[in-house]
Amino acid sequence: MTKIIAINAGSSSFKFELFEMPEETELARGLIERIGLDNGVFTITYGDEKEVIKRNFNDHKEAVDVMLDALVSRNIITSVEEIDGTGHRVVHGGEAFSKASLIDDDVVKKIEELSEFAPLHNPANLMGIKAMRELLPETVHVAVFDTSFHQTMPESSYLYSLPYKYYKDYRIRKFGFHGTSHQYVTLRASEILKRPLKELRLISCHLGNGASIAAVKAGESIDTSMGFTPLAGVTMGTRSGNIDPSLIPYIMEKTEKSAGEVLKVLNKESGLLGISGFSSDLRDITKEAKKGNERAEVALEIFSSSIHKYMGSYAARMGGVDAIIFTAGVGENSSLIREKVLDSLEFMGVYLDKKTNDETRGVEATISHPYSPVKVLVIPTDEEVMIAREVMEKMD
Amino acid sequence: MTKIIAINAGSSSFKFELFEMPEETELARGLIERIGLDNGVFTITYGDEKEVIKRNFNDHKEAVDVMLDALVSRNIITSVEEIDGTGHRVVHGGEAFSKASLIDDDVVKKIEELSEFAPLHNPANLMGIKAMRELLPETVHVAVFDTSFHQTMPESSYLYSLPYKYYKDYRIRKFGFHGTSHQYVTLRASEILKRPLKELRLISCHLGNGASIAAVKAGESIDTSMGFTPLAGVTMGTRSGNIDPSLIPYIMEKTEKSAGEVLKVLNKESGLLGISGFSSDLRDITKEAKKGNERAEVALEIFSSSIHKYMGSYAARMGGVDAIIFTAGVGENSSLIREKVLDSLEFMGVYLDKKTNDETRGVEATISHPYSPVKVLVIPTDEEVMIAREVMEKMD
Repeated sequence: MTKIIAINAGSSSFKFELFEMPEETELARGLIERIGLDNGVFTITYGDEKEVIKRNFNDHKEAVDVMLDALVSRNIITSVEEIDGTGHRVVHGGEAFSKASLIDDDVVKKIEELSEFAPLHNPANLMGIKAMRELLPETVHVAVFDTSFHQTMPESSYLYSLPYKYYKDYRIRKFGFHGTSHQYVTLRASEILKRPLKELRLISCHLGNGASIAAVKAGESIDTSMGFTPLAGVTMGTRSGNIDPSLIPYIMEKTEKSAGEVLKVLNKESGLLGISGFSSDLRDITKEAKKGNERAEVALEIFSSSIHKYMGSYAARMGGVDAIIFTAGVGENSSLIREKVLDSLEFMGVYLDKKTNDETRGVEATISHPYSPVKVLVIPTDEEVMIAREVMEKMD
Repeated sequence: MTKIIAINAGSSSFKFELFEMPEETELARGLIERIGLDNGVFTITYGDEKEVIKRNFNDHKEAVDVMLDALVSRNIITSVEEIDGTGHRVVHGGEAFSKASLIDDDVVKKIEELSEFAPLHNPANLMGIKAMRELLPETVHVAVFDTSFHQTMPESSYLYSLPYKYYKDYRIRKFGFHGTSHQYVTLRASEILKRPLKELRLISCHLGNGASIAAVKAGESIDTSMGFTPLAGVTMGTRSGNIDPSLIPYIMEKTEKSAGEVLKVLNKESGLLGISGFSSDLRDITKEAKKGNERAEVALEIFSSSIHKYMGSYAARMGGVDAIIFTAGVGENSSLIREKVLDSLEFMGVYLDKKTNDETRGVEATISHPYSPVKVLVIPTDEEVMIAREVMEKMD
């Protein structure tokens, strides 16, 4: 019996999930919020218990300490030595990490260097790594990167049509994100379809507040909608996705904002929020659209058509498609968006079973018509399990 | 017998073509280069004659004067009064012009106002309009806009996922370009296919030094790859097409360039030129790629895959496609690019006839396999004829 803990550390938060492997049984999970701030909260769930504890945390080390204490004092584990491995989610692995990696000082240094590409995320991820390594020095630590899965993309997908020296000198290229999620659901799709990944051409739609689409052929990502950063691609909750690049200088001139300020608008005030004017949450938008709010309707249309286009585009990229997968908050729960995204795709073999689609919320299901040549699957994502599996692999 | 002249005025150039309508017979065409500069050149072609005259031109009015003189002195027309109508190409018609428009002072003013959107083009187009109106005051003058054809796009195509006020306050939206060309070739496709436009779903690929793709359903543009400006969309000779918008601030920081300077890089030093490092001309790149130059090969791959993706994307947008059209320099002449763009599209009914494709250069041809459900057409574009037709329509 191997116990593996998956960690997702943010700048002021710390998420964990403890598994018994290889059974992938969840023993406990929890969340520590507002680290370094007032009104800290620690939530832990195990078995049928859920506890919410209000207390403050000075730093990530204190958070880890409290978490480990809680696991022992609730008899979830008998001692911290029982934890055999830790998997750390790291957002950006650049070109240095095409796979999950055992963490040593050199790897920590590389992750630090890659902070330039993900200034909000990598340093936060490192806080978790440092705290855990300090308190569990004897345990195997593995970094699992959001970008690694997409490192299989060919040059024609990852190179921008920019002066080549920008790639050579600054590593400007498409990286792609949500890799752990895309990998998890495509592996699961292979099981559901009872066909080896090697034979499959899959389009994976990770639709949450952030959203990305991946074309996965023979188990390898060959293209994805996000780019150098997670701003690119489809319309998102508050992110613009792709726009005419000329618009940045134009908006700067019109609004007298700096480039950085415009970038902030594109990241924080655009997408569903920007179009609708009232919310970045698809549930709010759907509700208002049903009441006839025109801007909400337009937001829905733009969001779904921005994804819809990728269905054709990635089918072309792979010479056809065997299955389309929906995952993450919106993908798992919004039958409306799924229906819109799959509209008029009969020409490429996609036939939705409307009734099954309408009834599917947050659970695994096949929502294509039984005779549809292209299968459509809803698969709840599980990045934590995927992280735990990567740790297992490194322990072999 | 009606004589119509089509004009395309640049800042230092002036192109014309005189037609007898409605037969669409070309009576003469010509080009005046280096207006306002030294070493001016006037080229005129009529019947089997071609003359190249070296002389300088102070301004557009002098250019028009010389052109009209030449037409009379060569007996192409007996007097300038014989010209019944003039059609002027204007790049940007914004939302004000969803059709060609009879030119009056008010229209001139509107075109001036739209210069903000096309600072390099509209003022130059206006120089031609002003000179022609002055010298041919009794003639009908019609403005034909590159953007008009795309004004049929639905909101879900033309609105960006930006704060809605940017659309309301600054008219930031997708406009699209090459409209006259896309319109001409889709009309011609309908004739070739012997099917009414109303029934057709067409993907039109205008591939020149600038390149754009349009989805044309029932004769109306419903989406196109260029955006607010002609920078967006696919990889071009020197333009980047779509990139992650975050890259502009990032490149600014890395290179210490201003936003305007980065924009210049994206417009002038990117695309095929940027990737290959040696040329923006597809012919040079193809030649070098055949010799094994790796960067040339990558440039070819990126260029063609950027177009290839739109085949699937726009098929999805229209629920399938009846015909794909190639036009303009690259589209009419490069069998290699056509083959790459159509690669692996059998899943959506596209079967290329490789032999016919290889043999087709610069002439009208059907290059799909006889049994291909989706027809593939090469159609040399003729924006001048389209402009003359628009003038005819306004004269009725």
